[in-house]
Amino acid sequence: MSFKKKHILDMASLCVDEVNIILNTAEMMKEISKRHIKKVPTLRGKTIVLFFYEPSTRTRTSFDIATKRLSGDSISISANSSSIVKGETLIDTARNIEAMNCDIIVLRHPCSGAPHMLAKLLKNTSVINAGDGMHAHPSQSLLDLMTVKENKGSIKGLRVAIIGDIAHSRVAMSNITGFTKMGADVIVAGPPTMIPSGIETFGVSVTYNIDEAICSADVIIMLRIQKERQEDFFFPTEREYSKVYGLTNKRLEKISKDAIIMHPGPINKGLEISAEAAECFQTRILNQVTNGVAVRMALLYLVAGG
Amino acid sequence: MSFKKKHILDMASLCVDEVNIILNTAEMMKEISKRHIKKVPTLRGKTIVLFFYEPSTRTRTSFDIATKRLSGDSISISANSSSIVKGETLIDTARNIEAMNCDIIVLRHPCSGAPHMLAKLLKNTSVINAGDGMHAHPSQSLLDLMTVKENKGSIKGLRVAIIGDIAHSRVAMSNITGFTKMGADVIVAGPPTMIPSGIETFGVSVTYNIDEAICSADVIIMLRIQKERQEDFFFPTEREYSKVYGLTNKRLEKISKDAIIMHPGPINKGLEISAEAAECFQTRILNQVTNGVAVRMALLYLVAGG
Amino acid sequence: MSFKKKHILDMASLCVDEVNIILNTAEMMKEISKRHIKKVPTLRGKTIVLFFYEPSTRTRTSFDIATKRLSGDSISISANSSSIVKGETLIDTARNIEAMNCDIIVLRHPCSGAPHMLAKLLKNTSVINAGDGMHAHPSQSLLDLMTVKENKGSIKGLRVAIIGDIAHSRVAMSNITGFTKMGADVIVAGPPTMIPSGIETFGVSVTYNIDEAICSADVIIMLRIQKERQEDFFFPTEREYSKVYGLTNKRLEKISKDAIIMHPGPINKGLEISAEAAECFQTRILNQVTNGVAVRMALLYLVAGG
Repeated sequence: MSFKKKHILDMASLCVDEVNIILNTAEMMKEISKRHIKKVPTLRGKTIVLFFYEPSTRTRTSFDIATKRLSGDSISISANSSSIVKGETLIDTARNIEAMNCDIIVLRHPCSGAPHMLAKLLKNTSVINAGDGMHAHPSQSLLDLMTVKENKGSIKGLRVAIIGDIAHSRVAMSNITGFTKMGADVIVAGPPTMIPSGIETFGVSVTYNIDEAICSADVIIMLRIQKERQEDFFFPTEREYSKVYGLTNKRLEKISKDAIIMHPGPINKGLEISAEAAECFQTRILNQVTNGVAVRMALLYLVAGG
Repeated sequence: MSFKKKHILDMASLCVDEVNIILNTAEMMKEISKRHIKKVPTLRGKTIVLFFYEPSTRTRTSFDIATKRLSGDSISISANSSSIVKGETLIDTARNIEAMNCDIIVLRHPCSGAPHMLAKLLKNTSVINAGDGMHAHPSQSLLDLMTVKENKGSIKGLRVAIIGDIAHSRVAMSNITGFTKMGADVIVAGPPTMIPSGIETFGVSVTYNIDEAICSADVIIMLRIQKERQEDFFFPTEREYSKVYGLTNKRLEKISKDAIIMHPGPINKGLEISAEAAECFQTRILNQVTNGVAVRMALLYLVAGG
Repeated sequence: MSFKKKHILDMASLCVDEVNIILNTAEMMKEISKRHIKKVPTLRGKTIVLFFYEPSTRTRTSFDIATKRLSGDSISISANSSSIVKGETLIDTARNIEAMNCDIIVLRHPCSGAPHMLAKLLKNTSVINAGDGMHAHPSQSLLDLMTVKENKGSIKGLRVAIIGDIAHSRVAMSNITGFTKMGADVIVAGPPTMIPSGIETFGVSVTYNIDEAICSADVIIMLRIQKERQEDFFFPTEREYSKVYGLTNKRLEKISKDAIIMHPGPINKGLEISAEAAECFQTRILNQVTNGVAVRMALLYLVAGG
């Protein structure tokens, strides 16, 4: 089967076969980043626009490195750039980018659905969603899937616990879709204020007791508490959150020794995860970062026509 | 005839032959951006500094893409960067750039004449004006000329209407010079407060009645109302401006069906131009954007020695 | 002797042989920047991260140009980028960069010792210090050494005067170490409030009388008064500073006609140096800038394995 998607918008729109193609391609791409000369000519002469309406270090850097390792030309446009300040709409800016014969727009946007809107309007340019509002972050979910597959051999039948602010996390939403699609049993845990009602309809179990979620988990995904986004407070104090919902040293002792711990980063050490848990032998956080470049190389390669 | 200009400062300093060389070169460059591999080795090993004292998305992006499609190395320096904050003068910064053996400085600066000053001082580095104060924006005028030539076959004898804030627009000034030089009949229209007295000496007709200007025009160039620059107000309300000087749906019906509509962007939809007019079959706004990359590739190529 | 250092942290940790290798390599690199095609494939497929926690134009631009002339891929991360705003520690950000298989981190950081800390923690990625707090700025010192060697034939035995705010200048500290290491006689001069007590233990002479320092100097290095950093005031008025400690026109007449004048830039003309002194035939300020690119090409090349 060949990959036919022109856009990567969310995990829901990718079928199992497409996810498998992406993961297999990413595995090959990962090998390139280990070479002495980390460069292949795959995207030579292609223009990739990194269009980030929200600040981002790791995702933007990861896509930038991925582009350059494939010999593509990356062009950065940020939210505080002129046209946007001058009041140009996202659609008009995107049409301009397309008119400059750019091949791929990698878009991060605070509004859910922004990449989907662009994908509908643009005729020749591919769109990769690098995070839209509280909706989706497919490249994050794909790198998480890759990391689990790499460490556990397969994804099917694994027990995956996702812990934290499920309601406001696009990482959580993309992983719920991604992991259930690939046959894992997903359980989500967090404070009641941070778990959207009806989340069970996505095929996941719910608990408000983190110990219940992590005790038998093969994969523990701790979510970042997005302090910088939190206008209202969903928990009383950081200390209490850590005690009740964090991966503390005490909880670290209770999890299976075969379980792996993941986190999308950046970490709030001592809040959702203790420093020890973040750096113990079961942690795969830097492994995720390495796979992030590989997955993004795969996505750029595949949407550009393989 | 070969191209001998080392700098591109304004339309006034280019002769007809030079404009024609640029437009012909741009036509060839445009073909590169349509290829599967949009890259030629023309500027390999050349360093092009994009030095933007004013924010800019489309012009900066366009020059950046142009540089990379020609295999040049682009280096971005922005107004909020350190040296400038530390109080270094433009001249000293430019001399430093030259001392780093950079080949071309693409300069946008809020002061009229800044690129001319640099061109006088620098010995080896070429200067391309990407917009200086209210003075000139030659690459915009050249892409407008290219778009007209492409759509109308030639420029000579065409009736070109430029509508809006003539007094504060470097696009208007460059186009008045560019289109009259190439033999078009130019008429400018706008509110009396926005038309500089004595503009007729540049060889254009003037009217305060937009309907008079557009009714028989072959080319209608609507200028952007630069709301972000306007400290004093030159018109009472946006609604009134739109009604009296905007390209409304009503006016759209009155123009020749063979006329083309252009706008330098970004557009204030509903102010100087209605959404319908901006997207109708007569509009060439995205065509201009595409040609912008081609013209900038031509300029970089030509000043670097052809 | 081959170059074995994996990191470039400060002048103190480089031996005389290593400095000589760097200067000789820089001399060869300088030739590349004079070519018609200023590009060699040395760092093809290498990822160089320019990680600047403090704003910088000339040092960042210089490293960026150096990377591109060696065909490396440069990735810029600045202090206001997301992860840092989100509270990620320097160490975690650096580990992430390493996990993306980046080869070299060029780090500027307001805290003295930051690059040393990273060098200890990272396993595969090299660190080049591009200025840390008030501690060190080795690439600046190396380009100063290169400029002196180029102009004077050798460094040994020369009388080098460093004038200004010795106490708060990483350029001064690196040059004191660098020039004494290479056998020059260094004298420092400045206001008593700006000369750290005990500086003589670094092997330099001290005077509070600038005339005494410069009268017989072969090399005069004027330091920048860092007005933007100065919270407390170490001198009463700019006019008085200039008169008592600046390289004024009057002092310019008294120095040896064979002496060369250097300054790390950007210059405060009329404060630490007069406009005439900054542009006279004895000045090597732009020479330093040119050599800066060459030295940084050498450093990137050498830490990447030569």
